[in-house]
Amino acid sequence: MSKMADEKVISAPATGGGEDGLIAGDLSATEARVRPLETLLRAAPLGLCVAAMAVMLRDTQTNEYLVYANGLCAAYSLVSAFYTAVPRPATLSRSWIVFLLDQVFTYLILAAGAASAELLYLAYNGDKEVTWSEACGVFGGFCRQARTSVAITFGSVVCYILLSLISSYRLFSAYDAPMPSLGNKGVEIAAFPR
Amino acid sequence: MSKMADEKVISAPATGGGEDGLIAGDLSATEARVRPLETLLRAAPLGLCVAAMAVMLRDTQTNEYLVYANGLCAAYSLVSAFYTAVPRPATLSRSWIVFLLDQVFTYLILAAGAASAELLYLAYNGDKEVTWSEACGVFGGFCRQARTSVAITFGSVVCYILLSLISSYRLFSAYDAPMPSLGNKGVEIAAFPR
Repeated sequence: MSKMADEKVISAPATGGGEDGLIAGDLSATEARVRPLETLLRAAPLGLCVAAMAVMLRDTQTNEYLVYANGLCAAYSLVSAFYTAVPRPATLSRSWIVFLLDQVFTYLILAAGAASAELLYLAYNGDKEVTWSEACGVFGGFCRQARTSVAITFGSVVCYILLSLISSYRLFSAYDAPMPSLGNKGVEIAAFPR
Repeated sequence: MSKMADEKVISAPATGGGEDGLIAGDLSATEARVRPLETLLRAAPLGLCVAAMAVMLRDTQTNEYLVYANGLCAAYSLVSAFYTAVPRPATLSRSWIVFLLDQVFTYLILAAGAASAELLYLAYNGDKEVTWSEACGVFGGFCRQARTSVAITFGSVVCYILLSLISSYRLFSAYDAPMPSLGNKGVEIAAFPR
């Protein structure tokens, strides 16, 4: 309850408190089912990023950008998993912050994964026109480790994409629908088949 | 009205049609302001992707992945700009399709941009440990064009990120908020300062 005190804007249930009671109860039950899943999805990249980083760092040839990106994402996963694990009243400002950070880290880890995949492609195939020779014959150990690391990184990308979906759902479902034909909540959407 | 006929699920304004009238009016005014902006944002990557593709294709050294990704995005931009330009009743299934396609193309063009930026970095700096020599001394023309193309591609990335925001807002605002404290629409959110 003390947490609610600093939220001046959203905490006051101004209108329709009575009739919203049942719906709010149903929805917080949904929320209670989603929260463990979300916490798991937030904790998973922590393990994945640390693993991808460790695989890269064990080698003398490191791909620095991938290591930094994985390190940042591991730190973010740690913080956000703890943040999500504790049930707390959701507010618009918190939803915005989580949403924006999820977006940033999703794009960051995807960009790191794509750039590393390109590097790996070049290491395997070389580029004859630019006279870059295939490098995995010489650096076979590095290539195997880099391939593992990139594969693990794409695992984190999948987690982050799902997290982005959850946090954008959580944020934007707090707003009214911009379109009249979607504006009637409740009945139609509950009956929507897929 | 004939367009509404095939939408069995959402078109029936089952509850509260009377009191929703005013809100729906306000919201469709917002929608009317957002639509031209969205159409512009969807048309912009068309120009950007075609430009990025043209710059790459004028050269003998092409970066195929970037060309394909830009081509796909140009095609999607063309279709989705026409689709958005025509006002039509929004439905959940349409919102889901636009949302998912926007997500896919945002990630695709970002990955293409990141991979090309990595290639460009290598072309400028080489990688001494792997004995890849710096290539821009020899292929200066290619490097300048590739740099232009990558910069333009990141312009499209920005457009796509904004489009993803708009389409996820449009989709998820049609759902109920999962959290009780965000569930009361109208009053608090309208008064939210930023």
